[in-house]
This record gives sequence, C-alpha cells and structure tokens, in this order.
Amino acid sequence: MGGDYAPDATIEGAVLAHKNLPSSDRIFLFGPEKIIIEKINEYGAKPADFSIIHAPDVIGMGERPIKAYTQKPESSISMGLKYLKHKDIDSFASAGNSGATMVGAMYSVNNIQGVIRPCTLSIVPKENGGRNVMLDIGTNPDVKPDVLYQFAILGSIYSKFVLNVKDPKVGLLNIGEEEEKGNLLCQSAFRLMKGSNNFNFYGNIEGRDLFRDKADVIVCDGFTGNIVLKQIEAMYRLMVKRNLVDDFFDKFNYENYGGSPILGVNSSVVIGHGISNAKAIKNMIFLSKEIHEAKLTKKIKRAMNKYIQSN
Amino acid sequence: MGGDYAPDATIEGAVLAHKNLPSSDRIFLFGPEKIIIEKINEYGAKPADFSIIHAPDVIGMGERPIKAYTQKPESSISMGLKYLKHKDIDSFASAGNSGATMVGAMYSVNNIQGVIRPCTLSIVPKENGGRNVMLDIGTNPDVKPDVLYQFAILGSIYSKFVLNVKDPKVGLLNIGEEEEKGNLLCQSAFRLMKGSNNFNFYGNIEGRDLFRDKADVIVCDGFTGNIVLKQIEAMYRLMVKRNLVDDFFDKFNYENYGGSPILGVNSSVVIGHGISNAKAIKNMIFLSKEIHEAKLTKKIKRAMNKYIQSN
Repeated sequence: MGGDYAPDATIEGAVLAHKNLPSSDRIFLFGPEKIIIEKINEYGAKPADFSIIHAPDVIGMGERPIKAYTQKPESSISMGLKYLKHKDIDSFASAGNSGATMVGAMYSVNNIQGVIRPCTLSIVPKENGGRNVMLDIGTNPDVKPDVLYQFAILGSIYSKFVLNVKDPKVGLLNIGEEEEKGNLLCQSAFRLMKGSNNFNFYGNIEGRDLFRDKADVIVCDGFTGNIVLKQIEAMYRLMVKRNLVDDFFDKFNYENYGGSPILGVNSSVVIGHGISNAKAIKNMIFLSKEIHEAKLTKKIKRAMNKYIQSN
Repeated sequence: MGGDYAPDATIEGAVLAHKNLPSSDRIFLFGPEKIIIEKINEYGAKPADFSIIHAPDVIGMGERPIKAYTQKPESSISMGLKYLKHKDIDSFASAGNSGATMVGAMYSVNNIQGVIRPCTLSIVPKENGGRNVMLDIGTNPDVKPDVLYQFAILGSIYSKFVLNVKDPKVGLLNIGEEEEKGNLLCQSAFRLMKGSNNFNFYGNIEGRDLFRDKADVIVCDGFTGNIVLKQIEAMYRLMVKRNLVDDFFDKFNYENYGGSPILGVNSSVVIGHGISNAKAIKNMIFLSKEIHEAKLTKKIKRAMNKYIQSN
C-alpha cells in the first residue's frame, strides 16, 4: 500500500520485477491480502508466484513516523521489517511513508555497531557517464562533523561494492575549494577527513561540481542533500515538460534508480519515491536485491570495525 | 581590472552600457589609467565620454578580502568605494574579488542601521515568467534565525521596489512543508517568521518549489543558497553544451542578470560574476543604476526602522 499510486503501481511493478527475476528469487508482498490477489490477477500474473503476507493496516503518507510505526504493527512496513529482522526475507523496499520505514529499520534490524546515524543515499549522474553517490539526502538535517565523517565511510563502501568504483574519492559539498572555506560544520569536517585512512578524501567540491568527475562520493548534511536532490528533480521535470531531455539528462529520472537505500542498518532496506510508478517500483525491488547481493551490510560492518579500532 | 576577463570584458561592457545610457548618466572607470584609455579606444568609444579614475593597484581574485582591501587603498575596489562613500558616484559595481567588494562595502558605506549581516541576492526564474529572489547566496554561511528573519525583510523590499512585485510572499527554503520540519535553524526561523508584520510570510518551500510560483522571496543561509545557485548554473551549462536551452531556460543565464546586489549597506553595490563577459558587465552596470533609482537604500532604512521599533 506504499506510495501515492498504490496499490496499482506497487503490484504492477512487482509483476514486472517477477518477470525479470530468476526463479530462485521470490517476491514477498505485504498488504491487504484480498487487494493484492485482485491486483496480481489484474496485471496478468499468478498469485501463487508471490508470497503474500496479509498486513491489513495502512500507514498514511502524512502520519508521524514513530507513532505510526509503533501503533500499527500490522501495517505493511511493520510486517515487512519484522520478516526482514527474522531473516525470512533478505531485503525490504517500500514507497510508503519514508520516515516510518527509516524509524522501523532502526527499531527492527538496528544500526550497524558504531554507526551514529543511518542515512539515505541517492545517485547523481556524472557528465562523463559515471555515477556519484550523494549522502545524506534528508534523514539527518542537523549533523556533527563526525557524522559527516561516517557518511564518507558509508558512501565509499556503497560506491565500491554496489557501483564497482575502484578506490572512490570523497568530496565534501561546500561553498569553496580551500580548506578554510564554508560553514563551521564543513570546516570541522574537512579537518577530520583530511588524511583519513578510512576513505580516499578528495577535498571540497562545490555546487557547480556536482555533475563533474571530481569525486565519486558527495558528503553533506541531510538538509543540503535534500534541497540539492529536489532541485535536480525540479529542473529535470521542467525539462521533460518542455521536451528538452536527451540521453544524458534522462539519467536524472528517478524512475531509473528505484529509490534511496538506507545505509548503516543491518540489512538491505530501500526507500522508494512517494510518486513511484510501476517502473520505479520494479527498479526499487532490483535495487534492494542488488544491495543484498553486494553484501553491503557485511562490508560496512568490516569498515566500521576498522574505524572503531582507529579511534 | 575586476573579473577573469578584465580589462577587455570590463571596458567592452562599459562601452556597451554607455551607448545605451541617457547622456545624464556617467560611467566612472576605476583602474590603471593607461590601460583604460587604450581599451576604450580599442572598443571604438571616446575616453572623454567616461570619468577615468586612476587606480594602479589590483586585488587578485584569490587574495584574502580584508587584507587585500585594507592594504591596497589604490585598488579599483577601494577607490570606487571611496567615491561611493563621498557620494561622488551613486552606485558601484565590480566583477573583481567579491569578498573584497563585500568587506569594502561594509567598511566604507557601512551597514544600514539595524542590519546584522548584509547579504547578497540572486534572481531565480519562475516557470510562469515571474522572478524569485533568493538570499543569502554565499556571504553568510552560518546564520542565526534572526538573521534569516532580516533577510526576509531585505528580500521583500528588493522584490517590491526593484522587481515591482506587489506584496511579495516570503518562502523559507526547507526540507518539508510543515512548521516542524527541517533543521533546527529553519524550525526556529519559522517560529519567528510566522505572523510577521514586517513581511508577508508564505511558509516553508522545498527544493522542488524553487521555480514555481509559491513564493517571491526565497530565504536561506548563505551556504545553502550558494550551493543551490551553483547547481543551477551547472545544470544550465550542461544544457547549453548539449544544445538543450530554450527561451525559458535561457533565463538561467547569469549574463542577463548582471550580478548580485549587496543588500543591507548604505548604497547601491553590485557584485558581478567572476567570469563576466562584456554583456554581463553591461547588465551589471544597469543593475547598479536600477537599484539606485529604485531608492532601495532608503526603502530598506524605513523597513529596518519599523523592524527595530517592533522589537
């Protein structure tokens, strides 16, 4: 029931994903059983090809995350994360209330040891065809320098093991290139990051460098990251409206990314865009599978152990 | 000598501006006299049509603002601002070291009484043809809520008297629509702004609303504003490179705006883009004249008096 176009977009997306998955993979659908079966039939698939877990409660898009998650144990988000916790499923994805999914992930599968603040990540396409990852994109509007330092670790692991970037460079999103530039947060973070042996620190990057090949990992607080990301979406939407999109700019289409992974919790959890259509849902499912198969959690655990020992 | 393409772009731009100004307006050029005269001739104008003030020192783009401004009293920025202070000229504009111009403006013509932090402003085009103003765009990377509140006053006055927007609406750039959303700074600023009788507060706006017609004045800290602005420029440049610019997106071309006014000092001062070409310089000169003629300083003084009395 997650997302603005549920249950149609979710079920249609799941049916699309099913068609493209090997038979060894199985999609679990959490939600009101009757609606799920009806919609699977409507979209031309067989209910028996899915595991359907009845979750009668629905968390609305506007509900307060903690309250909704704790008071609706039979919602699809709560039920799905319970299955994830008990390892009945390997990854979980939802285009529903993103705050509830984030809170739920921290309550159920918990933070990886040492991670102060889990965060969410997005892809930012590079002009040369490569891909930047940017984090945090909204979960943590106020952070301390050591949290930005951890984002650099988390983003580097993601870039390396999910996007296969060799020795990813970390750029600190700032308003000048030199060490002493920027706000107090970035000035302190720069001093912490300089000479780090937990990741490959490039230095400061600016708003104009977002699509260049300077860094592979763009680190920022969740306030800045969220505004940057929504602005990219706004400009992309204006371009689509005016028929100005080419192959390169089509990489800015969120549908192709499937959503934002939560980094720093003990499993693969992906938050889909509220406006997800079937294509986006399909890609969200694939993304959660990809993160599981890249053994991201294990890799982050190892990196965090190294970080804890070096502190 | 200001800007990456000086003295050619500056003189060519001044010559262009001269051709389009009424004879009652006079352009003063500050810089090495010999070079100025040579270049005016080169661009097909008469040196006698300009007031040429010899300023032999040059402040480099990379120099530290306070040091450069105070130690180079014979630079074009220092000399120009001295003329402005003594009212020998009505407005001053430079595409040179922006930090030095900002510091110089505060040292010479001073802050308007009550203004905690002068700031810089930029135009953000709206999809419907209107114009947003966004402030601060880089001068103040760390601000307190009362400074954001003052930005709302300054931006409203600019929108009203320079852009002729009737009763401009102020939007606080944030990562959610509701009052309790965002970082601590925005949460506090929202509480201050709500119900203000110094300006017309619309509420929070998000990154996706930047080009919409929700607000007329977009208020943010200088860190966020600078990243947003440079990102707009980066996307615009990518579009130009790929031949994707139409009439609407051409409004994102900084050349058409001429630069960023400094708001909150006792005169009209405009900071041009470092990469200004002749067209941008011409528009920078026109912008500084427009701000002077709108009697912006006087209007801001009046608004600040009202603000001081209401506190």
